[in-house]
Amino acid sequence: MTTTIDGSRIARRIRQQVAEEVAAAALSGTVPGLATILVGDDPASAVYVAAKRRAIKEAGMRDFHRHLPHHATHDDVAEVIDALAADPEVSGILLQLPLPRHLDGMALINRIPVTKDVDGLTTASAGRLARGERGLRPCTPSGVLELLDAENIPLRGANVAVVGWGELVGKPLTQLLLSRGATVSVAHEHTTDLAAVTRAADIVVVATGVRGLVGPEHVRPGVVVIDVGIHRTPSGLAGDVRSAELDGIADRITPVPGGVGPMTIAMLLVNTLRAARWGAEREAVAA
Amino acid sequence: MTTTIDGSRIARRIRQQVAEEVAAAALSGTVPGLATILVGDDPASAVYVAAKRRAIKEAGMRDFHRHLPHHATHDDVAEVIDALAADPEVSGILLQLPLPRHLDGMALINRIPVTKDVDGLTTASAGRLARGERGLRPCTPSGVLELLDAENIPLRGANVAVVGWGELVGKPLTQLLLSRGATVSVAHEHTTDLAAVTRAADIVVVATGVRGLVGPEHVRPGVVVIDVGIHRTPSGLAGDVRSAELDGIADRITPVPGGVGPMTIAMLLVNTLRAARWGAEREAVAA
Ligand SMILES: NC(=O)c1ccc[n+]([C@@H]2O[C@H](COP(=O)([O-])OP(=O)(O)OC[C@H]3O[C@@H](n4cnc5c(N)ncnc54)[C@H](O)[C@@H]3O)[C@@H](O)[C@H]2O)c1
Ligand SMILES: NC(=O)c1ccc[n+]([C@@H]2O[C@H](COP(=O)([O-])OP(=O)(O)OC[C@H]3O[C@@H](n4cnc5c(N)ncnc54)[C@H](O)[C@@H]3O)[C@@H](O)[C@H]2O)c1
Repeated sequence: MTTTIDGSRIARRIRQQVAEEVAAAALSGTVPGLATILVGDDPASAVYVAAKRRAIKEAGMRDFHRHLPHHATHDDVAEVIDALAADPEVSGILLQLPLPRHLDGMALINRIPVTKDVDGLTTASAGRLARGERGLRPCTPSGVLELLDAENIPLRGANVAVVGWGELVGKPLTQLLLSRGATVSVAHEHTTDLAAVTRAADIVVVATGVRGLVGPEHVRPGVVVIDVGIHRTPSGLAGDVRSAELDGIADRITPVPGGVGPMTIAMLLVNTLRAARWGAEREAVAA
Repeated sequence: MTTTIDGSRIARRIRQQVAEEVAAAALSGTVPGLATILVGDDPASAVYVAAKRRAIKEAGMRDFHRHLPHHATHDDVAEVIDALAADPEVSGILLQLPLPRHLDGMALINRIPVTKDVDGLTTASAGRLARGERGLRPCTPSGVLELLDAENIPLRGANVAVVGWGELVGKPLTQLLLSRGATVSVAHEHTTDLAAVTRAADIVVVATGVRGLVGPEHVRPGVVVIDVGIHRTPSGLAGDVRSAELDGIADRITPVPGGVGPMTIAMLLVNTLRAARWGAEREAVAA
């Protein structure tokens, strides 16, 4: 029997916990706040930002939104980021990607101070992750770990295959899993025998952007499969895994939608709360 | 037939190349320089620093050495680093580890500017490596890649097992190999079945600090084995691999001594030259 991992339920619980901690913090006068920055009018980005703002408000946090026109210059965006960076009311800053082509995304993201980098995508945060130092970790891979923890799946000594070594998921996830003591194999587009890698694993995480890449020929019975892919199809959302074909083979599997997706927003709330605490600690030290 | 990879010869060739490029640069008036900082009188550290300074001078570069007493304070060391960081004659700065116990090594290392971080050990350099941005990479893992390249061993699509996920070798090496298109499996002290990981690999790199950890039971015939370990024994230096037992099984193997060891110093020279060029570019932009 294959069990579906209910990411929506786990995400809801985490969001509730965050809301409770926010309420408790509010009693002592501090309310965490997230600033989302949207440049231009990409419809998908607008939908994502709206969902994040809604979740932030539902958790009782403050919503600082900045919408810049498509033709905003590097200096326009930089100025907005710098002002938010200097604002003590703003705990976290999220620059929604992708940016219009004429902007250098990495240069702009790297203006976000490490203590407010709730997406964990700055070079400074990547360095802190690589060195095992305090820092905010990218939301989607953190969400994958939370899912596995919520399901009581031990990571230390587990054999994990990470399929896809992208900036948002595979790269940071590999480091997070290793720092938890998992034995990790990383496969990607240059891998010659994907099935050999994934069949050796107790846990397979797929984050490639290739719809339906992983199927029964790739896994051994009893495996746990985490599908990070999201694809819009005429018949609804689909993932990087052919889940239906794994029924009866996998022990547990995340659905799309309702698996990793909801965890990403939940972890953004967790990171905003952490950022607020980190900021408060820094102010206390400075005072 | 198992071939021994002659790291000493490959390292010598790289050092010669660096010396030629230094001589060419000297014609236009710029001589790269390395500042080594030794705190205290640990005999092994003194030997390492002396070897690095000798190599730097042999390559025609300038040697700036600072020796601080064992009881030097954090501020003492920080002041020396900051002065070297500000000195345009100094291309690279190397703080020899380990430091005396009362000093916070990471805090001091992180004062080295990313453009002068020839050991590649700052958090900022780790971030640049993680994000695939320009930066100086740690010497020992870079040396491992140079060895494989010198032997014309293709990395793209190769199955590589990295045994040991330490700060100096395993962690950065994993990222370097993945960025070259290798499929990488990482094993460490929590790995439950080391042989299963290493037997699936075309190339096995061992960097654990556990003498003789890897032997014939861990590899398949035709494998390439890179032994990063160094142990002083009554009968001379030994590695993390039982090399004699792999004779006739491995296709190629690095000896200890004379394998990876000499590459580490060669790559320090390469990094110092790169740092000098990077510094010069920055000055040109600023001017
Ligand atoms: N659920 C969420 O909230 C969420 C969040 C972020 C990203 N995603 C999804 O995760 C996926 C990965 O995101 P990313 O930004 O890390 O991706 P990316 O595009 O940066 O990287 C994709 C990786 O997949 C590898 N790959 C491509 N084709 C492959 C193949 N045939 N076999 C094996 N590997 C292959 C590539 O080599 C690369 O390493 C995307 O599908 C994205 O939509 C989901
Ligand atoms: N040749 C050189 O120039 C050079 C330079 C630097 C380091 N080294 C050597 O490389 C080795 C690693 O250096 P480091 O600083 O990265 O090490 P480290 O001590 O930071 O990490 C050691 C790693 O080995 C793993 N490990 C320990 N026991 C193991 C076991 N039984 N099975 C599998 N994995 C095990 C640990 O989990 C850890 O990930 C050391 O032996 C060091 O002497 C050599």
